[in-house]
Amino acid sequence: MTINAYGALAGDRALELLSITRRAPSAHDVQIDIAYCGVCHSDLHQVRSEWAGTLYPCVPGHEIVGRVSAVGAHVTDFQLGDLVGVGCIVDSCQHCEECDEGLENYCDNMVGTYNGPTQDAPGHTLGGYSQKIVVHERYVLRITHPEAQLAAVAPLLCAGITTYSPLRHWHVGPGKKVGVVGIGGLGHMGIKLAHAMGAYVVAFTTSESKREAAKALGADDVVVSRHAEEMDTHAKSLDFILNTVAAPHDLDIFFALLKRDGTMALVGAPATPHPSPQVFNLIMKRRSLAGSMIGGIPETQEMLDFCAEHGIVADIEMIRADEINVAYERMLKGDVKYRFVIDNASLMA
Amino acid sequence: MTINAYGALAGDRALELLSITRRAPSAHDVQIDIAYCGVCHSDLHQVRSEWAGTLYPCVPGHEIVGRVSAVGAHVTDFQLGDLVGVGCIVDSCQHCEECDEGLENYCDNMVGTYNGPTQDAPGHTLGGYSQKIVVHERYVLRITHPEAQLAAVAPLLCAGITTYSPLRHWHVGPGKKVGVVGIGGLGHMGIKLAHAMGAYVVAFTTSESKREAAKALGADDVVVSRHAEEMDTHAKSLDFILNTVAAPHDLDIFFALLKRDGTMALVGAPATPHPSPQVFNLIMKRRSLAGSMIGGIPETQEMLDFCAEHGIVADIEMIRADEINVAYERMLKGDVKYRFVIDNASLMA
Repeated sequence: MTINAYGALAGDRALELLSITRRAPSAHDVQIDIAYCGVCHSDLHQVRSEWAGTLYPCVPGHEIVGRVSAVGAHVTDFQLGDLVGVGCIVDSCQHCEECDEGLENYCDNMVGTYNGPTQDAPGHTLGGYSQKIVVHERYVLRITHPEAQLAAVAPLLCAGITTYSPLRHWHVGPGKKVGVVGIGGLGHMGIKLAHAMGAYVVAFTTSESKREAAKALGADDVVVSRHAEEMDTHAKSLDFILNTVAAPHDLDIFFALLKRDGTMALVGAPATPHPSPQVFNLIMKRRSLAGSMIGGIPETQEMLDFCAEHGIVADIEMIRADEINVAYERMLKGDVKYRFVIDNASLMA
Repeated sequence: MTINAYGALAGDRALELLSITRRAPSAHDVQIDIAYCGVCHSDLHQVRSEWAGTLYPCVPGHEIVGRVSAVGAHVTDFQLGDLVGVGCIVDSCQHCEECDEGLENYCDNMVGTYNGPTQDAPGHTLGGYSQKIVVHERYVLRITHPEAQLAAVAPLLCAGITTYSPLRHWHVGPGKKVGVVGIGGLGHMGIKLAHAMGAYVVAFTTSESKREAAKALGADDVVVSRHAEEMDTHAKSLDFILNTVAAPHDLDIFFALLKRDGTMALVGAPATPHPSPQVFNLIMKRRSLAGSMIGGIPETQEMLDFCAEHGIVADIEMIRADEINVAYERMLKGDVKYRFVIDNASLMA
């Protein structure tokens, strides 16, 4: 089937309207009419070839929500018309230790929603800036939010799970004091989720102007990280820090805020490394620096259900597909509160 | 009481014979006639003022073993003649969360065995390169090894606990595959301990010449870390890495060997930072970089008992106190297998 999509033909070209094909659903496939697709910073890195190995045409998008429009013969969990989502993963080996544990995100053969290997034309996966997508049922998520919130649910599929998974893995909950560094697409979800989990949340930003917004998102306290004396008031007091900032920055000022046995988890990967952390900061309190990457399929479903139960969605700004190039420029300037979402109806011919 | 010691009067002077005083034992004090004292790399850093804040005269030494020669009125656990040890800690606040949990090593007011604050003359603590030491009973360890092994027990008080504590904290045991990076004072203990705990131990060294020695210490496999293809055979296979190397080095080649959720713990602190680790290496498999510093008093006793039970001591080379300056030069060249120990009888007038 031939559909419309928005993507780029080369790393130095703007995104434009493209015509792509999707496979007919196999026995275990779910075909989805995409209603909305969130715009992740990874989309921009990939499509502009800022990461190695981008294949063209490149159609980004891995925060996909929509309705089931066809199912394969063996699909029992999804029916026509169901509200569903697809995140960063559309395939994996399905038999390694990671897949067996529902941690498909750590499978060595995880297939990303775009730029991943596939038998389908053109030989690599094409993402959610498109009218439809066909995905194996294992990687399809059920959405129980009210339909009116559907566009704002889209960013949960990447920004939501990327922050939810480390918060759960490092046992954030009542009685815990948690830092969230950066108040952008990921960070604003981190604040909402950590707050809903019952933790005391301290948001860290470099912008004085974000102080009130962070409180509105659910932060109990907001610290402008350039102010050393403000930072000092939280010295050795945080159980966990979720660091969402991908730009290289000084990690040591945050380690100093962790209690003994505290962990700072990075979920953003800078193009060049952070300044090297002081080893003494780790050794003196048995602290850890960790990384975390999106989340597995069962945990993504758990996150969606948690968000539906707590009335959590992303704060979004809706755009038409043909506004994506402008949106990228605004995203680079941090000029979005907090996530662009494409209205995929704008892809209609 | 006035005793002989070996120490330095300034950072640029050699160590020499000094006369120092020790307090008379208070109600909870144990007075120890020091038989042997291990030589730790920290001793050299401190006495040469390579770390900030060295106070002079500086008498290093925190791997102390000997016999009880006096006890305070309220001491019930130790008697005259008992074989005992003192490690890196001679005092702490005794009422914080860390002290309450027996993690005095992470107490904000931990007092080191040398260069720490004290009421005793000259106002800072003086270590084990001396004839006697007087220490609060809380910080005195019981030694159950045969007396003939006493000199080789000394390094357990720092090198032993510094490696034992992270191995235990990160659950090293049967069924686990563990890397030990560096085969020196710390690393040779790490290999022995991880082996005794039942793990499969892979030793990493930059020296082809250490291959056989590492196997003799208990390594199941030895990898020369300069050989990329040898490293690759262990890719994504290690549960935990104990990294004992204090010199700045590439951490990324070791991260690549950790399984999902694996941790590399650093126990050496380089004077200048390691090259900054690649964040992708942490994120892709939810790996962690951690630090660990010595161990608490209960765990130090547990380690000594574990070593006695398993017949574990350090591999040592005995020296006289007046050989310490030469020993430091040899230590800097890695020319010791694997720990110098001072025979404190050589301090007699």
